[in-house]
Amino acid sequence: MRVISVIGITDSGKTTTIENIIKELKRRGYTVGTVKEVHFHNFKMDVEGTNTDRHRKAGAQLVTARGEYETDILYQEKLSIHKILSFYTQDFVILEGVRDTSVPKILTAHDIKGIEDRLDETVFAISGRISAQTAQYKGLPAINAMTDVEKLVDLIEERACGFFPDRKEACFKVTVNKREISVSLSAQKLLDSAVEALLGELDGYWENGEIEICIRK
Amino acid sequence: MRVISVIGITDSGKTTTIENIIKELKRRGYTVGTVKEVHFHNFKMDVEGTNTDRHRKAGAQLVTARGEYETDILYQEKLSIHKILSFYTQDFVILEGVRDTSVPKILTAHDIKGIEDRLDETVFAISGRISAQTAQYKGLPAINAMTDVEKLVDLIEERACGFFPDRKEACFKVTVNKREISVSLSAQKLLDSAVEALLGELDGYWENGEIEICIRK
Repeated sequence: MRVISVIGITDSGKTTTIENIIKELKRRGYTVGTVKEVHFHNFKMDVEGTNTDRHRKAGAQLVTARGEYETDILYQEKLSIHKILSFYTQDFVILEGVRDTSVPKILTAHDIKGIEDRLDETVFAISGRISAQTAQYKGLPAINAMTDVEKLVDLIEERACGFFPDRKEACFKVTVNKREISVSLSAQKLLDSAVEALLGELDGYWENGEIEICIRK
Repeated sequence: MRVISVIGITDSGKTTTIENIIKELKRRGYTVGTVKEVHFHNFKMDVEGTNTDRHRKAGAQLVTARGEYETDILYQEKLSIHKILSFYTQDFVILEGVRDTSVPKILTAHDIKGIEDRLDETVFAISGRISAQTAQYKGLPAINAMTDVEKLVDLIEERACGFFPDRKEACFKVTVNKREISVSLSAQKLLDSAVEALLGELDGYWENGEIEICIRK
């Protein structure tokens, strides 16, 4: 599974950008999931007076509505992105408006101020309204998702962050001079523990993310 | 985790019965979750035109809305009860209107016909409107959840079906002449495989349910 986030202020084009990304990823044969961060303070998806709402009000801590064509699992808490991603099995997951994660990000904006407000080292491309006016900003490509989505998705394929919800799925690849060498399972476990112990305390370390270490000597 | 289902035709008192059960289980210190089977054919929890709805229409196969106080995971398929229960960690899960499972059931009804329409060997109690008129039917207790919820929840504590979403959590208990004897892990695994192989084909066998075998000789 590979993950990116699309961030930017309200009405800067996040959802439109994501719609175009989803369609292009699907055209390339990938499965896609999404996570929307809702900033509206009183957000509540269920409707007053439904049976599920009555369950919740009576004290049920987790409520599910199962229909003929959908199943909605309603948690009464803000789950961590890590926990949410553990439900996904798609090839790509696109987060909308999720900022509390170190996954690579596309930043949508109206103007330069909109970029500057949210720019950080995790941003790998600019999109949204401003991309109609400029092709790059501070070395970052500005790509219009309406007219140039293939270029944007090429970049996503290159930059999206690997995510392995289950450590058992972790894949090890060690290359020496660009040639892959095989690593025994016991050596993999040893490497895994050592790398985790070394990196766990570092800023920006992302539990179950993809770790790439390059040593040149 | 322990599971029951409350079944019965529309307006027979399912949700009211469940509200009372939830409150009484909570009063006893248990955590509670619920699952509602929605029989309305065109059921759709998300609203036309929301960002999450736009993600889904663009082709996202799994969509999550994360707010400040809730997280809604929207699957676009009818998940199995087994899969749904794997999200739960509560002490009790009450299913509403779920009939495609062999968990013990409370049947709510208006009248005798309402009982007869849905009665099967998994029903351990009658409730709903008819329980105001009669105290039992064909040997099954009819209990009014509004006036006599303690009696109903005593029965639930006694009859609810154990569920272990993860086989690793399975607990083994072997008693001989009512005295528990310890079973080594390897013997447990052996017993587990043997019992599953023997029971797997039987009618009413419930994957990951609680199995109790009693041998008298």
